[in-house]
Amino acid sequence: MLDNIQKQLLKEVADLYKMPKGAYNIRANGEKAARNTTENIDIVTKDDKPGIDIIIKDGTKNESVHIPVVLSESGIKETVYNDFYIGEDCDVVIVAGCGISNCGTHDSEHDGVHRFFVGKNSKIRYVEKHYGEGDGSGKRILNPVTEVYQKENSFVDMEMVQIKGVDSTHRVTKAELAEGATMIVHERLMTHGEQKATSVYEVELNGEGSSTDVISRSVAKDNSEQIFEAAIIGNTVCNGHAECDAIIMDNAHVVAVPKLDARNVDAALIHEAAIGKIAGEQLIKLMSLGLTEKEAEEQIIGGFLR
Amino acid sequence: MLDNIQKQLLKEVADLYKMPKGAYNIRANGEKAARNTTENIDIVTKDDKPGIDIIIKDGTKNESVHIPVVLSESGIKETVYNDFYIGEDCDVVIVAGCGISNCGTHDSEHDGVHRFFVGKNSKIRYVEKHYGEGDGSGKRILNPVTEVYQKENSFVDMEMVQIKGVDSTHRVTKAELAEGATMIVHERLMTHGEQKATSVYEVELNGEGSSTDVISRSVAKDNSEQIFEAAIIGNTVCNGHAECDAIIMDNAHVVAVPKLDARNVDAALIHEAAIGKIAGEQLIKLMSLGLTEKEAEEQIIGGFLR
Repeated sequence: MLDNIQKQLLKEVADLYKMPKGAYNIRANGEKAARNTTENIDIVTKDDKPGIDIIIKDGTKNESVHIPVVLSESGIKETVYNDFYIGEDCDVVIVAGCGISNCGTHDSEHDGVHRFFVGKNSKIRYVEKHYGEGDGSGKRILNPVTEVYQKENSFVDMEMVQIKGVDSTHRVTKAELAEGATMIVHERLMTHGEQKATSVYEVELNGEGSSTDVISRSVAKDNSEQIFEAAIIGNTVCNGHAECDAIIMDNAHVVAVPKLDARNVDAALIHEAAIGKIAGEQLIKLMSLGLTEKEAEEQIIGGFLR
Repeated sequence: MLDNIQKQLLKEVADLYKMPKGAYNIRANGEKAARNTTENIDIVTKDDKPGIDIIIKDGTKNESVHIPVVLSESGIKETVYNDFYIGEDCDVVIVAGCGISNCGTHDSEHDGVHRFFVGKNSKIRYVEKHYGEGDGSGKRILNPVTEVYQKENSFVDMEMVQIKGVDSTHRVTKAELAEGATMIVHERLMTHGEQKATSVYEVELNGEGSSTDVISRSVAKDNSEQIFEAAIIGNTVCNGHAECDAIIMDNAHVVAVPKLDARNVDAALIHEAAIGKIAGEQLIKLMSLGLTEKEAEEQIIGGFLR
């Protein structure tokens, strides 16, 4: 079973204080640590490569799947393939996430490749949190790839969070939307120290009336570097919006490269981006209430990333 | 001297109905057609390659330089290098532009490489218009490269216009700004038929208090294709803003790829982009006033590109 460090990681990445209700699969240090399936949600270990298939029956509602991964040994490097087959008319919550505690000298790396096949009229909320900790010189590396294939009138709401402790990440999210499908993404990202984070989104609006809203908020501290790329491709009557707001601090470096690609007269695409430091007035206001400058900064960042 | 076609082209690209006042250099079909210099503005033919040096003395104010280019023969392909050496404390207007009338079967191409060395405290207004006409199957091709080096507290206001008739263009504009320098760009672009236009801006804000505002408005009709890339790099305390608004019509294809690159905590960078078709309500309003749909569209486009 899980040790205390692993339990702590689970709490950070999946808000889990004990075993979750419903379906779950917990992976610890490269092996299955626990699994539960339900009448509607099956989880099957893949034969050909590391990873699992999560199969959700048509009409499954108000259920959840948790598939957190924790690494507490130094020097583990794994690539895991998880496929989600979601039937029609479902309404489910999927919680993924990876926590790495690396107190050793070797790099620890988890690369998750998640594919979502979302059936007609289904509604999915997907939460993915990444977290790192540990005093070791070994790096904590996470390179997630997420592919989303949305059938007619499906709705996907993704929350992608990387708050702390991940030294290097290159995250790629691609989506293809059919008629009437909607995809909402909220990304929240904080980097510090010498961390590097690259986040790439590519959403193809293929079906009539499909729409997407990709919103990224990030804070770059110390000497960290962030690159944000978001491409929205409009192939039909569709609506796309992308927004990227970044707070830059210290000696950080932030690059935002959105891309709007309108291939149809009825594609309406909008993008906004802003990079800047914390407003001086905000800091002074909070400091006049008795906070130190550092406390005021933390308050503002906390609010910005909430 | 100039024939009637050439005179018509001059009118389109430089609003010239007769020889301009002040300094000018008119290039027609690959050769110098007319030149005038003033006490403060000298124009010298380059020794080593096609092109001219325009040398403007310190303190030159309220003067103008016109350097239009017209091509009325089919099959001309030329690359011309023009360098502008602008002294300190100047206030001048520079009008460039190229008109191509191609009634023949061979492609006509003019590639202008313009470099601007702008002295301290100088103010420059630069207008560049590109225009094509002619029934021939030969293409009208324009690939301008513009480099701008701005010294302390200089101010450059650029108006880049390509309204009609250019089959293929790949325009690149790069700028480097010193302390307190400002660069404003207004680009207006219309493509139709099978035309392709790529427009790339890269502005480096190197000096404290430097700022830029790059505004592009474009209309893409028929099967035309437009690619707009604008990168703003903030290396110090600076302000950068880029905005790209495009109207898409028919089977056109529009891509907008802005890039904000903040390399300093005091760099404040903002971008907005929107691609969409003409709003239905606007059309209906104008049509209710008695305009046909085509007339209403033309009114709206005209207003948008003004």
